[in-house]
Amino acid sequence: MTAMRIEILNTGTELLLGSTANTHGTWMGQELVKLGLRVQRQLTVPDGVAIEEALVETTRRSDVVLVTGGLGPTSDDITREALAKVLGVEMIEDEAALRSLYEFFEKRNKPMVDANLKQAQNLVGADNLPNKNGTAPGIYAPPRLGGEPSCAVFLLPGPPRELYPMFHDEVVPRLKALAGVEAIANVVELKFVGIGESDFHDQLDEDLANIEGLEVGYCARLGEVDLRLIGSDEVIAKGRKLTEKCFSEFLVSDDGANLETVVVRGLEAAALKMTTAESCTGGLVANRLTDVPGASAVFTHGFVTYSNEAKTQLIGVSEETLTAHGAVSEEVAGEMATGALRVSGADIAVSITGIAGPGGGSDEKPVGTVCFGIATHAGVETFRENHPRNRLDFKQQASQRALDLVRRTLLKNQ
Amino acid sequence: MTAMRIEILNTGTELLLGSTANTHGTWMGQELVKLGLRVQRQLTVPDGVAIEEALVETTRRSDVVLVTGGLGPTSDDITREALAKVLGVEMIEDEAALRSLYEFFEKRNKPMVDANLKQAQNLVGADNLPNKNGTAPGIYAPPRLGGEPSCAVFLLPGPPRELYPMFHDEVVPRLKALAGVEAIANVVELKFVGIGESDFHDQLDEDLANIEGLEVGYCARLGEVDLRLIGSDEVIAKGRKLTEKCFSEFLVSDDGANLETVVVRGLEAAALKMTTAESCTGGLVANRLTDVPGASAVFTHGFVTYSNEAKTQLIGVSEETLTAHGAVSEEVAGEMATGALRVSGADIAVSITGIAGPGGGSDEKPVGTVCFGIATHAGVETFRENHPRNRLDFKQQASQRALDLVRRTLLKNQ
Repeated sequence: MTAMRIEILNTGTELLLGSTANTHGTWMGQELVKLGLRVQRQLTVPDGVAIEEALVETTRRSDVVLVTGGLGPTSDDITREALAKVLGVEMIEDEAALRSLYEFFEKRNKPMVDANLKQAQNLVGADNLPNKNGTAPGIYAPPRLGGEPSCAVFLLPGPPRELYPMFHDEVVPRLKALAGVEAIANVVELKFVGIGESDFHDQLDEDLANIEGLEVGYCARLGEVDLRLIGSDEVIAKGRKLTEKCFSEFLVSDDGANLETVVVRGLEAAALKMTTAESCTGGLVANRLTDVPGASAVFTHGFVTYSNEAKTQLIGVSEETLTAHGAVSEEVAGEMATGALRVSGADIAVSITGIAGPGGGSDEKPVGTVCFGIATHAGVETFRENHPRNRLDFKQQASQRALDLVRRTLLKNQ
Repeated sequence: MTAMRIEILNTGTELLLGSTANTHGTWMGQELVKLGLRVQRQLTVPDGVAIEEALVETTRRSDVVLVTGGLGPTSDDITREALAKVLGVEMIEDEAALRSLYEFFEKRNKPMVDANLKQAQNLVGADNLPNKNGTAPGIYAPPRLGGEPSCAVFLLPGPPRELYPMFHDEVVPRLKALAGVEAIANVVELKFVGIGESDFHDQLDEDLANIEGLEVGYCARLGEVDLRLIGSDEVIAKGRKLTEKCFSEFLVSDDGANLETVVVRGLEAAALKMTTAESCTGGLVANRLTDVPGASAVFTHGFVTYSNEAKTQLIGVSEETLTAHGAVSEEVAGEMATGALRVSGADIAVSITGIAGPGGGSDEKPVGTVCFGIATHAGVETFRENHPRNRLDFKQQASQRALDLVRRTLLKNQ
């Protein structure tokens, strides 16, 4: 880890009004961790004079300031001018930037308006950072551009599709040069499904803390925990060994792959197909599977059987079972899975039927009750669980469990 | 609008590492706008000594500081102690907080560990803010608690399910008292689907700017734009009239309801049922519909027909049509919609078939090509469009268009 002090400055009134989520901090934080670098602070200020104040503050305090936003063509886009003022350098029209602007509009058969001209302005002595996906080029002001301060400043566009490629192509090489090393950190992220952060605290935290030089971080999301190990190869291997000993069955991936990707990969590797019979999750499991490129090779049919009638009509759940046990029952979940398997011709079927709420609960089956079925040619297994959460979290948690049942089935059949 | 200076201070190393998205700033920003209040700055710092520095900075600069995080039971949770130090006041065990802690663990049949005891510590003279959903109570330090500074400080828990109710129950009433008014702002949010922010800029921006006293904000998301109007009832009405004149057919809601909610409400009101036949969206439309409480009254069957075979087998798309026109064609989209309508017995069916990518494109049908069908008992209409985007954005955009087709069909049939 280098001790380079890096600060993120996000500009934009919309960020403080809450009308746009600030995802830049998160994204850049992740990218910098991969380089072995750390963000020390992140600051959001509105458009206008606050930008200049913030530039003074941040450039005095840090080695690198990554600024986003305020490079557009309209009157409230003043980041360039503010930086020139703070650094005490003149502005000049950048030829390359101007050419790119003309090309951008030409390609789109649109006339360039005068307002865009200011986007070709750069600080004297600063680099122009080409923008592949928009009109706003970035700017790199190296340390001591105006004599003081010693801080390097990147001005970057706000829209992610413009920011991300510019960050990779233009910012990363310069950051590496500034850090004076090929500062690729050793970072391993282990993703676990089916256990919570508290399980780690209870069973593993202390042992991991005893490994000298190992930095440990957790990130808990609904139904999953990411464990981040940072350090030398040796200490990471130690930490990993400890962790896998404790929680191997819950370990889903070590390369950042999410659960649906792991399931699709597992099906591909086993040359198997799966299908879904969803009631309360309403298509979420199918949707997650088809988020993965190449899902069509392993997933062909999905059933959203939200009503009893659909369960009977589409996948052959018997009316007797529905009447005797209710739609939310292990019996119905079992018939949903076997029925979907039969109709689709897949090798594995997972079913979900539950009470997402807010209405529909009873004493015997409160909101949050959910039953799963997992069917293969070898037979069917069913499960009943309770996840009392709000509707969307419940759906997410149930879809997580359904996908994990498929993952576990694939492991067993390896 | 009051001029009260409000600052948000988010603490947590995980926020800067990018392992957790910082959604607090966005959420609190939105809630404060509803109160007619504004966030002037948002700052994120890591756990540890930086919290104390940041508290000194922010309390000197602002009238109210809303701090999140660092109230947990572990050793890196030091926000309470840092604030006591910065304000120069002692800490004391809070009886009510301690009682709540014991009750929390008793309810869950779990033993309370010593580490939790520190969560019952409060600053002398500060309010304890009860936490409905967790062990960490919040703290409210009124202005001049330790003599200086004049800033009011709220310490709030990090997890959203703990933060949100505490904010509404404990923070909002105190903020209103501090602002010295029942500072409910007049805010109207109009949600539009099918036009972009640039359409507003081109056709409406200037006219809206000419309405004195009207504040206008945009928030563009994939396939939708929210227009926020802030001001007196009179100027909001003026702005609204202008907007509706220009873009009435695209206006989806004026109460924050999202497109799927509007569709479910519309179906309910018309006592109609809909069904979905999804190829490239893979269940996303069904999933969005079933995110809405009460969806079961209007949605019973959903078909995810990812393969040609599923299209033929489940909803009767003819093999001839598939061979002659390909799966991504208006012809197939039309047959998908009519087939789904017939099989499900619904009143409206929407179908989506397209090329989500990254693979599968051709010269004639590049990645991003997507066809829609919308069938009712009166007949079927089909559409072909192109949305060249990454896989997930493409799915979202296509699901947005599919739901909007249903909304427009409901409007026509009113």
